[in-house]
Amino acid sequence: MTNTAFLEACAAAIGAQHVLTDADDAAPYLGDWRRRYQGAARAVLCPADTAEVAAIVKLAREHRVALVPQGGNTGLAGGATPDASGQQAVLSLRRLNRVREIDPHNNTITAEAGVILADVQTRALEAGRLFPLSLASEGSCTIGGNLSTNAGGTGVLRYGNTRELCLGLEVVTPEGEIWDGLRGLRKDNTGYDLRDLFIGAEGTLGVITAAVMKLHPQPAARVTALAGLGSAYAALDFLALAQRHAGPLLTGFELMSDFCMQLVGRHFPQMRYPFQTRHAQVVLLELSDNESEEHARTLFERLMQTALEEGLVEDAVVAESLAQSQAFWDLREHISLAQSQEGLNVKHDVGVPISRIGQFIEETDAEIAREVPGARMVTFGHLGDGNLHYNVQAPVGGDPKRFLAENEKTLNRIVYDSVQRHRGTISAEHGLGQLKVDEAAHYKSAVELKLMRAIKAALDPLNLMNPGKVLR
Amino acid sequence: MTNTAFLEACAAAIGAQHVLTDADDAAPYLGDWRRRYQGAARAVLCPADTAEVAAIVKLAREHRVALVPQGGNTGLAGGATPDASGQQAVLSLRRLNRVREIDPHNNTITAEAGVILADVQTRALEAGRLFPLSLASEGSCTIGGNLSTNAGGTGVLRYGNTRELCLGLEVVTPEGEIWDGLRGLRKDNTGYDLRDLFIGAEGTLGVITAAVMKLHPQPAARVTALAGLGSAYAALDFLALAQRHAGPLLTGFELMSDFCMQLVGRHFPQMRYPFQTRHAQVVLLELSDNESEEHARTLFERLMQTALEEGLVEDAVVAESLAQSQAFWDLREHISLAQSQEGLNVKHDVGVPISRIGQFIEETDAEIAREVPGARMVTFGHLGDGNLHYNVQAPVGGDPKRFLAENEKTLNRIVYDSVQRHRGTISAEHGLGQLKVDEAAHYKSAVELKLMRAIKAALDPLNLMNPGKVLR
Repeated sequence: MTNTAFLEACAAAIGAQHVLTDADDAAPYLGDWRRRYQGAARAVLCPADTAEVAAIVKLAREHRVALVPQGGNTGLAGGATPDASGQQAVLSLRRLNRVREIDPHNNTITAEAGVILADVQTRALEAGRLFPLSLASEGSCTIGGNLSTNAGGTGVLRYGNTRELCLGLEVVTPEGEIWDGLRGLRKDNTGYDLRDLFIGAEGTLGVITAAVMKLHPQPAARVTALAGLGSAYAALDFLALAQRHAGPLLTGFELMSDFCMQLVGRHFPQMRYPFQTRHAQVVLLELSDNESEEHARTLFERLMQTALEEGLVEDAVVAESLAQSQAFWDLREHISLAQSQEGLNVKHDVGVPISRIGQFIEETDAEIAREVPGARMVTFGHLGDGNLHYNVQAPVGGDPKRFLAENEKTLNRIVYDSVQRHRGTISAEHGLGQLKVDEAAHYKSAVELKLMRAIKAALDPLNLMNPGKVLR
Repeated sequence: MTNTAFLEACAAAIGAQHVLTDADDAAPYLGDWRRRYQGAARAVLCPADTAEVAAIVKLAREHRVALVPQGGNTGLAGGATPDASGQQAVLSLRRLNRVREIDPHNNTITAEAGVILADVQTRALEAGRLFPLSLASEGSCTIGGNLSTNAGGTGVLRYGNTRELCLGLEVVTPEGEIWDGLRGLRKDNTGYDLRDLFIGAEGTLGVITAAVMKLHPQPAARVTALAGLGSAYAALDFLALAQRHAGPLLTGFELMSDFCMQLVGRHFPQMRYPFQTRHAQVVLLELSDNESEEHARTLFERLMQTALEEGLVEDAVVAESLAQSQAFWDLREHISLAQSQEGLNVKHDVGVPISRIGQFIEETDAEIAREVPGARMVTFGHLGDGNLHYNVQAPVGGDPKRFLAENEKTLNRIVYDSVQRHRGTISAEHGLGQLKVDEAAHYKSAVELKLMRAIKAALDPLNLMNPGKVLR
């Protein structure tokens, strides 16, 4: 009866056709993209605008119904999936899909939470600007989800995470009030930074309904290059050299171990390995140049010349065309696909200080070799951000499912303990969601957890905003 | 007696010689730099390290003594000055002055709160890196104060505010516990963004004791140029053009009205006005180039050529030498000094969306001309950040003191109402302190104030951390 009353009130607020209770209608919202989590819900609620979101939050508060905000449902940590109780309601933001304003002189775009990331990129491009956030799911993830998880992606080295791209927010608070913080200002020192508190909170402190995002000038050209190196240590020195030469023009610096390259070659034989010999590590570099392709290429050639002379790189190739630039990126982007083809694996989205990357890989590899013989490390990532996808593939032969079932816990413990020793993070860009909430509680200090809990209790004392995510 | 007990306990914790109660010893800590505020205090407490800060905070809590954290005491909003009651204690962070670590490969420096900003710059330079935060008081302000006020300065266009330069913090909480958030990570999505909550909170949520700050590669050359323009509107188009040409190499874009130039010429006749004729607005541009001075100059010349052809600028001059670059910056930096020479004035540190700057100036000028006849506007600022120092000088002749006494309130109301209409900020880079706490309460929404108060109450329920600042 309470449920009926709640659903009727929701239907009155947003229209009955936007309160999904039919199992088939609701299904796409109840499981996560990686199919790790399957939840249930009283209903999936699809308000059309901010006022309707506020109305729903007020009703949920009145009826003590927990809400699970959801954008494009592409998250990798189960943050947007309801629990199995069937007592929660999914709050889908997809109908909030208007671009409210583009201001080229202010280099900003104001978009509602449900706007697809690729659409933000397109609208920026049409205005002669760049919106640099870019990630694999950009065709279906939403800007609200990007903000709530502080998504990373491939442009972080130069442009920062989603957090650094946001100037202002509109948020529906847990009380159902609308906070209009939609400021398009580069500087504003008038009190607590509420914006950054809601960013990355995964919907546990309120519902982001719109945002003012920063735009950048469109570069005249993007050019990539590949370099073969003897070790991850050499890659660190090479990064410093590249930054000295290119400064902020360096927009990509991706590390890929030789085993990554071997996997790509094995499962995608049409993809050409660009060097004569094997190299322990391959680095992909990208320059975004405001002058010209020629200028970028000249800069690359000078950099590679110096790096070869200093013995930092063993071989290098600069893309001759846009197609070749894309082919280099394809190598990088096919690693995950090649991993899937190769079979089951355990993924880790970790970060350490950039200076520790060589040591982290060496020590962690050695410990895994000792404790979990046969495990094969697939190590790649955004070296320029200190973010490694340190994945572990089951050994050749045997039963990979059984191997992982027996060893996943040990592998996680080894990797995360090593991360902790190097003052790193167990979730660099994917967030905590429900996947890592216990791991986070294990590794965070008591003081930090206490501060987080105090903030959660202050803003959401009824614990109705995405409960069980981020914090327990 | 309570006071004696508190002071004795403090003396036991940090040494009697670091508990200043003598009037002469304490005096430099009790008034603000601009001599707008004069406070009193039980004592000035000077702990040596984080553990001693924690001990003091615990004692203050036990004895219910409010603490006023203070760095270099150069703030412009009275945020570090105690009230007049004599019941508060100043907590000076100056003895926490160690650089704990420089990590060139991670591009980070870990410094304690009391390290002078100029020393952070120097230590970065010695490691072949740039710490880009730069402001007038850099010889005496501290990094802890910069963080607590989220200081801006001249490098924001490219490098961001202090907030954007910080990766991690160490904070003593209002409970006297130490939060070790000293992470040197570019990516870390494991929960609420506590770091950004403490940054800009002006010591009202806890005491920042150390920070991990980002370093950047040292540019090979910095070159400046001046351009004369017909209006602030033209400056907006010129900014967009400059960003398209130079992208992230553009590190400065400062606007100065002709009246600013006239004031500098009048009071510093040795400073050469660089153009043949007057221009309504003069823009100072700076490029930070990773290649060479020659490359920067060529880029500037190409930009100016295009801007002249498109009719955006009326005249332009590119610095031929480091000395000339410095001379251009000197023009900009002498505006405040020339204003002082010219006489009393009211200062406003406001920000609006960059696209609104022309309109903001035009409308606000017109309203002031109507309401406060004779007032002379001295308008300059960081156009690239939307941050204007919109100052008002008393009319020629008459009694400036009386003029300002009679009109300051009206002027502030006109300027801040105009800021509000343009969705701007009444404090772009100086913070609220005690100077603007009531203005902020007037202009902020009830929802925003409620959120801020909820956070303050959650973290500092006894209201002992810099009470009366930021929020009342």
